[in-house]
Amino acid sequence: MRSIDLNADLGEGFGDYRLGDDAGLMALISSANVACGFHAGDAAIMASSVSLAKQHGVDLGAHVGFPDLQGFGRRRMQIEPATLAHFVTYQLGALAGFARSADYPLTHMSFHGALGNMAAEDESLARPLLQAVRAFDPTLIISTTSDNAVERCARELGLNVACTFLADRAYQANGLLVPRGTPGAVIHDLEQVSQRVIDLLKNGAVSAIDGTRLPMNISSILLHGDTPGALALIARLRRDIVESGVEIRSLSQQKVR
Amino acid sequence: MRSIDLNADLGEGFGDYRLGDDAGLMALISSANVACGFHAGDAAIMASSVSLAKQHGVDLGAHVGFPDLQGFGRRRMQIEPATLAHFVTYQLGALAGFARSADYPLTHMSFHGALGNMAAEDESLARPLLQAVRAFDPTLIISTTSDNAVERCARELGLNVACTFLADRAYQANGLLVPRGTPGAVIHDLEQVSQRVIDLLKNGAVSAIDGTRLPMNISSILLHGDTPGALALIARLRRDIVESGVEIRSLSQQKVR
Amino acid sequence: MRSIDLNADLGEGFGDYRLGDDAGLMALISSANVACGFHAGDAAIMASSVSLAKQHGVDLGAHVGFPDLQGFGRRRMQIEPATLAHFVTYQLGALAGFARSADYPLTHMSFHGALGNMAAEDESLARPLLQAVRAFDPTLIISTTSDNAVERCARELGLNVACTFLADRAYQANGLLVPRGTPGAVIHDLEQVSQRVIDLLKNGAVSAIDGTRLPMNISSILLHGDTPGALALIARLRRDIVESGVEIRSLSQQKVR
Amino acid sequence: MRSIDLNADLGEGFGDYRLGDDAGLMALISSANVACGFHAGDAAIMASSVSLAKQHGVDLGAHVGFPDLQGFGRRRMQIEPATLAHFVTYQLGALAGFARSADYPLTHMSFHGALGNMAAEDESLARPLLQAVRAFDPTLIISTTSDNAVERCARELGLNVACTFLADRAYQANGLLVPRGTPGAVIHDLEQVSQRVIDLLKNGAVSAIDGTRLPMNISSILLHGDTPGALALIARLRRDIVESGVEIRSLSQQKVR
Repeated sequence: MRSIDLNADLGEGFGDYRLGDDAGLMALISSANVACGFHAGDAAIMASSVSLAKQHGVDLGAHVGFPDLQGFGRRRMQIEPATLAHFVTYQLGALAGFARSADYPLTHMSFHGALGNMAAEDESLARPLLQAVRAFDPTLIISTTSDNAVERCARELGLNVACTFLADRAYQANGLLVPRGTPGAVIHDLEQVSQRVIDLLKNGAVSAIDGTRLPMNISSILLHGDTPGALALIARLRRDIVESGVEIRSLSQQKVR
Repeated sequence: MRSIDLNADLGEGFGDYRLGDDAGLMALISSANVACGFHAGDAAIMASSVSLAKQHGVDLGAHVGFPDLQGFGRRRMQIEPATLAHFVTYQLGALAGFARSADYPLTHMSFHGALGNMAAEDESLARPLLQAVRAFDPTLIISTTSDNAVERCARELGLNVACTFLADRAYQANGLLVPRGTPGAVIHDLEQVSQRVIDLLKNGAVSAIDGTRLPMNISSILLHGDTPGALALIARLRRDIVESGVEIRSLSQQKVR
Repeated sequence: MRSIDLNADLGEGFGDYRLGDDAGLMALISSANVACGFHAGDAAIMASSVSLAKQHGVDLGAHVGFPDLQGFGRRRMQIEPATLAHFVTYQLGALAGFARSADYPLTHMSFHGALGNMAAEDESLARPLLQAVRAFDPTLIISTTSDNAVERCARELGLNVACTFLADRAYQANGLLVPRGTPGAVIHDLEQVSQRVIDLLKNGAVSAIDGTRLPMNISSILLHGDTPGALALIARLRRDIVESGVEIRSLSQQKVR
Repeated sequence: MRSIDLNADLGEGFGDYRLGDDAGLMALISSANVACGFHAGDAAIMASSVSLAKQHGVDLGAHVGFPDLQGFGRRRMQIEPATLAHFVTYQLGALAGFARSADYPLTHMSFHGALGNMAAEDESLARPLLQAVRAFDPTLIISTTSDNAVERCARELGLNVACTFLADRAYQANGLLVPRGTPGAVIHDLEQVSQRVIDLLKNGAVSAIDGTRLPMNISSILLHGDTPGALALIARLRRDIVESGVEIRSLSQQKVR
C-alpha cells in the first residue's frame, strides 16, 4: 500500500445542536462525508462544511441516510427502493448545490447508518440506490466497506469504488460489521485502533472479532467524528500512517476505480 | 405583447397528501414552479414533477420557501438572511439534482408565500437570497411580481427577471398584492380573472383593488394549481390568450432579461 | 349480536392538507380514532376533531402511530420497544390534553398502520406498548383486530378490549389482515363490504380471502375515512346494521371487557 | 424574602443530541421546565426528565415553544393566536401524559424563547395562550418574568403566577429582557450573576443595564441549563441563597398566587 485516504463523517449537527468538532477534523483528514439534512445536518451546517472542506483542500462527499433526524439515521425503515432512490438524488443534489455555489467539486458519496447496513446486505436495494447516484453523476466515487452488496453493485454499474476500513469498528468473519449494540462492536481503545491500522497498512488484512484474518484492498480509513477523543485518535493515525511509509491522499487524488 | 408564459405552482403535495392536479396542469402550462421539500413537496413528488415537465416540455423552476410544511410556507418566520440564503441554495440544489438526473434543465426560480412577501418588501432580505441564486446559477430566471425589492435586486445583480401577473390575486395601488386574508384578496370568479388577463394582454395594465391603473411589463401569468377549478380556469385563459393574438411561450423561450 | 360500534379513523390531515371528510364522518359514526400528530394530524386538527366528537356524542379515541408523516405511518421502523412505548405515552397525552380542555373523555385507543401490524405480530412489542397505555390510563379500551398479539397482551394486562372488524379489508385464514399492496387486500365494492357486514352481524363470522370461515367476536366495525365514497359506505352500513336488528352503540356504551 | 425557587430549563436535547447536563441539574434545582417536543425535547427525553424530577422531588413544569426544532424556538413565527393556543394544549398534554404515567404532578408552565418574548409584549397573544393553559388545568402556575403581558393576563384570568428572575440575563429599564444578540444581553461572569442574586434577595430589586433600579417581587430564579458552567453557577447560587438566610423551595411549595 502506497497511499491511503483519511476519512470522517462530518456536519452531523442540526440547528443549535452539534456533534463532533468539524473544524478540528477538517484540519486532519483528506476526505469528508457530509450529512445532507436527512439523518443529520442542515443547510447552514452544510454550507459551513463545504467552506471548511474547500479551505483545507479536503475531498467533499455526500453522506446519504434515512429521513430520520430523531434516530440519527440508525433505525431501519421499510421504504420502497424507488422512493429511497429519490431520497438519494435529493440529498446528492442539495449538497452539490453548496459545492456548486462554492465552486468546489463533490467527489464521492457513501451511505449512512441503517441505510448503509441495509444496502450492504441486499443487492435489490443497493442497485436502485446506486443507479440514482449514477444518473446524478457517474463520476462520483462510492465509498463503502468491502465485500458487500454496495461494492458489488457499484462495480457492476461501472462506478468508481473506494473501499474503506472502519478503524474503530469490529468486523465479523464474513466481512460485515459487528452490529452496533453488540458487545465489542465499537473499539474505544486508541492503542488497539492504532494497531489495527498498522496491521492493515503492513499486511493488507485485519483480524475479525473471532480472529479470522480478513484480507482488505482498501483506499480509505474511516473515523467517526462524534467519538470522544476523535481528534487525538486521528492525529495518532496520521503518525502511524506516515511512520508506515504510506502517504495520505484523498480519494480523488488516488484515482480509485 | 407578442408572447406570454402560463405558469403554475406545482408539486405541492407531501407523502400521501396531494394538492392540485399536477399531471392535468402540466398539460396546460408552459412553465412550472416546483416545491422543493421545505414548504411542500418531497423527493418522490419532485422526481415525478420533473418527469412530467420533461414529458410536456414545460420549463422547470424551483419554488423556494420557508421550512414550514405545517404552515405551507405562508407563516412569516424571523430567520437571519444568511441562513435563509443557505435554505435557497439547498432547495435549488435538491431540485437541480432531479433535473440533472433526468437530463432536463432547471430554468427559473421564484420565492413562495411568506418568504416571497417578505423579500418583496425588503431589499436587505431580497439581496442575499438572490446572491445565493446567482452563486448557484447566474443564468436562472427570477420569476417575480413586478415593482418590488425582488425585481429591483435581481436586476441590480444582473440576473434575468421575468415579471409575473397573479391573475387570481387583487393588487394594491402600490403594485403589491392585497394580503391573503383581506376580503377580495383572492379572485374566485372565472369571468373576472379572464377579463383581467384580457385587459392586461390588450392594454399592458391591470386595475388595482381601488381602481388605480397599474401598467405592467410582464412575461408570465401565474395560476395557483391548488385553487378549485384551476384546470378549467387555465384552459379558459389559454383560449383568451390565443384569441388575443398572443403566443404562449415558456420563460426560457422568451429570452427574458 | 345486539349492538355494534361504527368506528372510523379521523383527523388525518396535516396543516393545509386534508384526508377524508371529518365533519361528515362524525355525523355517522359512534366512535372516532383521532391521529395524534405522529403519522398524521396536528394540534389544530386534533382540537377540531375533539370538538366535533363532543358535538356529535362520538367516543373519542387516540390513533397512535410511528413518527412518520411522510409515510403516513405505513412504513415499518425498527425502533426500540421502550422508545416506542414513550411515543405511545406522548400521543395519548397530547390527545388527552385536548379532551381535558374540552371536558370530554378519552375512551379508547388503537395502533395505526405499520405500528399496528408489527404489534399484532409480536408480543414482545405489543406488551410494552400496552403497558404504556395502562400506565397512562388503565380504563382506556384497546380497539384492535382479533386473535393477535395486541388482543392477547391487552387481555393479559387486564385492559378492556374491543375487537374490531375491518369491513373493507380482506383477511387471511389465520385471522391477520391481507397486507396492503397485495391484490384484493382492500375491498372497494360497496355491495361486497355491505354483504360482509351483514354476514358478520347474522352469523358472527366472515370469510377469509381463501374462503375459510373466521368466527369473530367483535364490538366494532372500522371504516377508513379517507377511502373514496366513505360517507356513502358508512351510510349504507348504518342501514344494514339497523335492518339486521342490531343497535349502533359506541365502545364505551357497550361496556366492553 | 423568605424562600425562593431555583429553576432551570431542561430536557432540551433531541434524539442523540444533548444540551446541558439534565441529571446534574436536577440534583441542584427545585423546579424544572421541560421541553415538550416542539422547540426541543422528544418523548424519550421527556420520559427521562419526568423520572429524574420525581426522583429528586423537583417540581415539574412544561416549557412551551414554537414548532421549530431547527431554530430552537428562538425564531419568531407569525402564527394565528388560535393555532398557537392549540400548540400550547398539545405540549401541555404531552408532558402531562408522562407525568400521569409516572404518577407525579405537573405543577407549572412557562413560555420558551421567541414565543415567550412575543407573548410578553402582546396581550392579544398572551391572553389566548393563557386561556388554553386555564382550560387545560386552572391550577398550573404560570412562571414568567414580571411586569409584562403574560403576568398581567395570567393574573386577570385568575391563574397562579410565579415571577422569575433571569439571573444571567440583563434587563432593560422597562423591565423587559435585553434581547439576545445585543451586547451584554447574557451575563457570563459567575461573580456578577452571584452579586445580582444577592442584591435581589437582600433588596428586592436589581439593576437594569442602564443602572435603573427595578423592584422585583419574585418567586424564582431561572438559570439556563445549556450555559457552559451552569452546574458550577447553580451550586454557587445555592450557597448564596442559603447564606442570605433564604430557603430554597419549589414553586408549588411556595403556594404562589
